[in-house]
Amino acid sequence: MNGAETLVQTLVDSGVKVCFANPGTSEMHFLGALDSNPDIRCILCLFEGVVSAAADGYARMAGTPAATLLHLGPGLANAGANLHNAMRAATPMVNIVGDHATYHRHLDAPLTSDIEGLARTWSVWVKSARDAASVAGDAAEAVRRAQEGAGGIATLILPADTAWNPAQEPAPPQAVARRPVPGPERIDTIAAVLRRGEPTLLLLHGDVLSDPSALDNIDRIAQGTGAELLTETSNARVERGAGRVGLDPVPYPVDDAVRRLKHFKRCILIGSRPPVGFFAYPGKPGKLLPDDCQVHVLAHPDEDGRAAVATLAAALGVEGKTPRHVTAEKARPLPKGKLTSAAIGASLANRLPADAIICDEALTTGGPIHAALRTAPAFTQLRLTGGAIGIGLPLAIGAAVACPERKVVVLQADGSGMYTNQALWTHAREKLDIVTIVLSNRSYAILRHELSNVGVVNPGPKALAMTSLGDPDIDWPSLAKGMGVPGGAAKTAEEFDALLAKAMAQRGPFLIEADLAA
Amino acid sequence: MNGAETLVQTLVDSGVKVCFANPGTSEMHFLGALDSNPDIRCILCLFEGVVSAAADGYARMAGTPAATLLHLGPGLANAGANLHNAMRAATPMVNIVGDHATYHRHLDAPLTSDIEGLARTWSVWVKSARDAASVAGDAAEAVRRAQEGAGGIATLILPADTAWNPAQEPAPPQAVARRPVPGPERIDTIAAVLRRGEPTLLLLHGDVLSDPSALDNIDRIAQGTGAELLTETSNARVERGAGRVGLDPVPYPVDDAVRRLKHFKRCILIGSRPPVGFFAYPGKPGKLLPDDCQVHVLAHPDEDGRAAVATLAAALGVEGKTPRHVTAEKARPLPKGKLTSAAIGASLANRLPADAIICDEALTTGGPIHAALRTAPAFTQLRLTGGAIGIGLPLAIGAAVACPERKVVVLQADGSGMYTNQALWTHAREKLDIVTIVLSNRSYAILRHELSNVGVVNPGPKALAMTSLGDPDIDWPSLAKGMGVPGGAAKTAEEFDALLAKAMAQRGPFLIEADLAA
Repeated sequence: MNGAETLVQTLVDSGVKVCFANPGTSEMHFLGALDSNPDIRCILCLFEGVVSAAADGYARMAGTPAATLLHLGPGLANAGANLHNAMRAATPMVNIVGDHATYHRHLDAPLTSDIEGLARTWSVWVKSARDAASVAGDAAEAVRRAQEGAGGIATLILPADTAWNPAQEPAPPQAVARRPVPGPERIDTIAAVLRRGEPTLLLLHGDVLSDPSALDNIDRIAQGTGAELLTETSNARVERGAGRVGLDPVPYPVDDAVRRLKHFKRCILIGSRPPVGFFAYPGKPGKLLPDDCQVHVLAHPDEDGRAAVATLAAALGVEGKTPRHVTAEKARPLPKGKLTSAAIGASLANRLPADAIICDEALTTGGPIHAALRTAPAFTQLRLTGGAIGIGLPLAIGAAVACPERKVVVLQADGSGMYTNQALWTHAREKLDIVTIVLSNRSYAILRHELSNVGVVNPGPKALAMTSLGDPDIDWPSLAKGMGVPGGAAKTAEEFDALLAKAMAQRGPFLIEADLAA
Repeated sequence: MNGAETLVQTLVDSGVKVCFANPGTSEMHFLGALDSNPDIRCILCLFEGVVSAAADGYARMAGTPAATLLHLGPGLANAGANLHNAMRAATPMVNIVGDHATYHRHLDAPLTSDIEGLARTWSVWVKSARDAASVAGDAAEAVRRAQEGAGGIATLILPADTAWNPAQEPAPPQAVARRPVPGPERIDTIAAVLRRGEPTLLLLHGDVLSDPSALDNIDRIAQGTGAELLTETSNARVERGAGRVGLDPVPYPVDDAVRRLKHFKRCILIGSRPPVGFFAYPGKPGKLLPDDCQVHVLAHPDEDGRAAVATLAAALGVEGKTPRHVTAEKARPLPKGKLTSAAIGASLANRLPADAIICDEALTTGGPIHAALRTAPAFTQLRLTGGAIGIGLPLAIGAAVACPERKVVVLQADGSGMYTNQALWTHAREKLDIVTIVLSNRSYAILRHELSNVGVVNPGPKALAMTSLGDPDIDWPSLAKGMGVPGGAAKTAEEFDALLAKAMAQRGPFLIEADLAA
């Protein structure tokens, strides 16, 4: 075996089943090793920003890391924006980044750059393999480190000669340390805080949001103590819809968030951090909780929040309460006329099959859609976590690969969708069961709003042009056709509903441009 | 004035005329300042990798830096691959990277990351503005530093409050130090080397390649001494075609390069560095010159190569020689039948207007096209410099903005073109006079070749799938239509020639998919 072959077998033995790849010359031996190993699936993406978001979506749904294959510093940089999102989602991921042979690096060939420095921007663990004999051990460590604590990105840099030189054998998988469970003292403290009966927020993030039974326990705690529930604004994965506890996030606009939070005297963090403004604005606060609100921690992000809420529910004696679940809304009236976000939401909530996965990068147009989805059949929602736009289309790749039996729906803002439109090609090649809804308002609408927020109330032609996606309008069905994905455009609520019915009735990729500017 | 207004006016006063932008919330005051300043042009690109390559293409043609506007760490990362290329091209560029307000950064909001660390990967100068009062001075320094020495990327990080807080006035432009001219001792040494009459290579890179009169001097030196000429493999800008000195690069394949270089006993570097393999291969050398070849420096990359060759020609007494220029080849026979690279080259050489700019990311299919272009009407060639694919389509934006009166032609490999396909939208919005030729072989052909280079002679289905762009085939005219660019596909030499004739006869963007797999 060569180094690459021991590396690939070690990944497989450690539980890595998929590699999202955009290979280059320096990764040919690794590619050869993937080629000859029947136990790992390879999925080609035509841009590395697709690779990293696909690996993120996969791990959010599968619970185990995927590998990526990236080509030196520029390939890693291309993956960077969605690595940032994955970092903020605490997604386990193993990057394999090809590099020049160890003896070639000092020659400073054109593709040479500081890969380690770059990788540290997003990784919890970075190592450049020393030689072929040790690369398998590095791989086992990478898979372990990606899964420890809250989860994170482990980046193994693979100089070409560490791949092609002879090596011995794969390394054994490394045991992943269990996440610490908050101890009885912590539980007692939080229980005492809750028993005070003050206006208290349970702020949720992380592992509890992907576990309906943990959410049931949290709702029992809320029922028993009068505390209120909110999630952080951006969450990697939330179980939502009918038959589950209803959840709302801390609002994104600073003023709305401050208003929503202003009456709380206590905030209990469950896998979350104290809420802050996504951006700073002149004269507005950065910290969103009132100054006199005391913050307590039930579970840190790297701890076992699910165990914590189960123990807390028992300590409070509320474990027998029936959780308040959202009731399914049946047969909403079919929206008519002008195509709006509300109409899209109603159609989608009507037509969503049970257990769908929604990859949500709706941004400014999302509000009414999210409201309608509240009572839709149970679904899993994956969202943009780090604010680096361009995650929706590729995140869906990973979700669909992890859960081939579940329908995946992408709610994709148009400006963000352009960032990684290459993902559509992989939707087509892998025949993934993904319905993409492009919310086409033909602008960076959020920036129009933000311009006025910062005082540019009468933007001139330049500022308008810089926030417009018109002139020319993007024709999404043509783009999709160019990459092998069928679809159509809707200008009315009826047209949208008809296209959505068609998309839901078939399997495989389909794109609907929802023309919100019509 | 606020900080952003003093910054923009300082950029303008320092000679920056264009800003390629993809703005976000934290850059709204900067956008407001651009909006209100009539002396800077703003061009929206729908992905930051387009922004950075456009700024690169602009500076390669204009000789002065453009500004970019990027949104925090992820925006900078997205720009990174083409910043890598610009770094390798020694292109002057001024990045303005928006950041959270200084007092907001410690809150670790979702978009927070180590922007300075990231920027250092590609920049000769990085600074995070301290306050609104000093940001104008920072901008003047950035423009200067981008232009000093060989040229490079200066990155100014702009916390939102340094843009929105009140400031005094713009800063005066800073004088750019002239590039050092090699002294008489260096000239005498090199002249003595050349007079020995040994097999000698003049290896060219940098400023001499973009100056036909410098190339004339170099050819005179070659004529007078028997030295041979080659350029580095990857060059930012070369003046080529009829009426100019004929130039060939050091071949990309290691074996070919070694064969081409093996007889040289002396190598004189003129703005260049000793040639090395683009990648390492098992059992092949990294350094491409023979071990017994002595290397001498006439001009370092950050020195004035043009002055050096003029002085050297005089010292050698060859300044009176008539340079050997390439003769124009008239009316090549119209290629017929199967569409090949040679047919594309012949059509293009026939139909190229004088003074065109060719943005060349042809890669594996380029050889016969380059051969045909040797005798085409005089043109400027801009190439991929750092091996980070996805430069062609956006590089053309910058070239067309810098030289609106010149036809721009993109030779674009299909796999690379997908990386930054969003550039086509800016071609359309700005009505740029760009003809894009997509060389569609439906594969990462270079990787097929490299797989066999590293010993994978019978690739299995996975390796084939990972190097194939088929299944589904990319339909480039549909992609282009989706972004407002008209075009068509050619499957024969005749169809290609007809489409090219049409494209050359009009102004504005046009895309031709050359189906080399048909």
